Amino acid sequence: MKLVLVRHGQSEWNLANLFTGWTDVDLSENGVNEAKSAGRLIKAEGIDFDIAYTSVLKRAIKTCQYILEESDQLWIPMEKSWRLNERHYGALQGLNKAETIQKYGDEQVHIWRRSYNVSPPEMEVEQAKAFLSDRRYKMLDEKLIPITENLELTLKRVMPFYEDHIAPNLRQGKNVLVAAHGNSLRALCKYLENISDEVIPKLEIATGQPIIYELSDKLEVINKKILTEDV
Amino acid sequence: MKLVLVRHGQSEWNLANLFTGWTDVDLSENGVNEAKSAGRLIKAEGIDFDIAYTSVLKRAIKTCQYILEESDQLWIPMEKSWRLNERHYGALQGLNKAETIQKYGDEQVHIWRRSYNVSPPEMEVEQAKAFLSDRRYKMLDEKLIPITENLELTLKRVMPFYEDHIAPNLRQGKNVLVAAHGNSLRALCKYLENISDEVIPKLEIATGQPIIYELSDKLEVINKKILTEDV
Repeated sequence: MKLVLVRHGQSEWNLANLFTGWTDVDLSENGVNEAKSAGRLIKAEGIDFDIAYTSVLKRAIKTCQYILEESDQLWIPMEKSWRLNERHYGALQGLNKAETIQKYGDEQVHIWRRSYNVSPPEMEVEQAKAFLSDRRYKMLDEKLIPITENLELTLKRVMPFYEDHIAPNLRQGKNVLVAAHGNSLRALCKYLENISDEVIPKLEIATGQPIIYELSDKLEVINKKILTEDV
Repeated sequence: MKLVLVRHGQSEWNLANLFTGWTDVDLSENGVNEAKSAGRLIKAEGIDFDIAYTSVLKRAIKTCQYILEESDQLWIPMEKSWRLNERHYGALQGLNKAETIQKYGDEQVHIWRRSYNVSPPEMEVEQAKAFLSDRRYKMLDEKLIPITENLELTLKRVMPFYEDHIAPNLRQGKNVLVAAHGNSLRALCKYLENISDEVIPKLEIATGQPIIYELSDKLEVINKKILTEDV
């Protein structure tokens, strides 16, 4: 069985150099092309999926849709969960990255971006309320909705989804696609490859390049392969 | 609670004047625009869906995706079922409509297209085998996969999906979107409005124009409204 992870293509806020997190921004034109490219790579590799998972954010959902469409399997079941969302970026969401570095310094921003267990400042109460009243999060206990996250916290909310949805399918010999975000995927890679807290922040996951894990019966990684359009 | 039915936009085979049925053809450019228009109409009407259902054919799936995207609710759950597929057109699938009329005569073709319980000729064995080996139908008992259908048979396979998936959601007060096909939707309209076998073939369902049923607690139709872009 194969688990394939794909990070969504470039978003409009990646392009504008803004911290995004849980903000629901669209793919840029380039991002759409990256998603389609990922679909073509998967088609060329001949991978038939049994189920696809994605977040509740449109840049990941659309990436998932484009991948399935380009690989001629738009009809397979596709489920969406908030647990696969990008890391919540706290008060930094919506800020310009360059301006934030000017204001807080390179070192501080690097820690917020890349430390395993240090979170950015918490989101303001008013802004957090907007997330609480968003229809897609309304069925959740307020305590589950973050006001900031680091990678460790992201991993803690992603893992129950892996355990209850992704892993049971893999154990039945199914091929699973997960189209999600830099940090929700980093969390899955950390768990699957047993990467240390110190090393994981350095793992870069390229947009639109499918990571193919071939797994044993016990869901241990037998082989890892990354598909790219230019060899 | 509201049940909204949308017939997919124009497909490439509608455009080429071919009988389509279960053949999985894409939307034409015009069809994409019709789907997006349906999404804008639903947004303007302010309908928040709780769940969306569609068939396993890409022209309906993509229509569903465009509607959800245009109405800012791409994150809601979306499920796909073969039971919502278009009517199976038997041996006529892939034939040109005009040529078929020349060959069999206007009256015969009209009967195949519009009779409630007369089916077109059965699909050839070899062609039918291709459907049986299609991955999306492989989990089904062979006997469930049609080799031809009339509207009555279509209704019989659509109804279990209505009873087990659509109606339970409506009974819980949820708003449901169904993006599907001319005949699978005609079947639902027949049931909901209690239309006779004689009258139902004459019911025309326009592509990309959402039909909004407002329902009582017992799922009786209180109001029916069709949204169109030009008033």
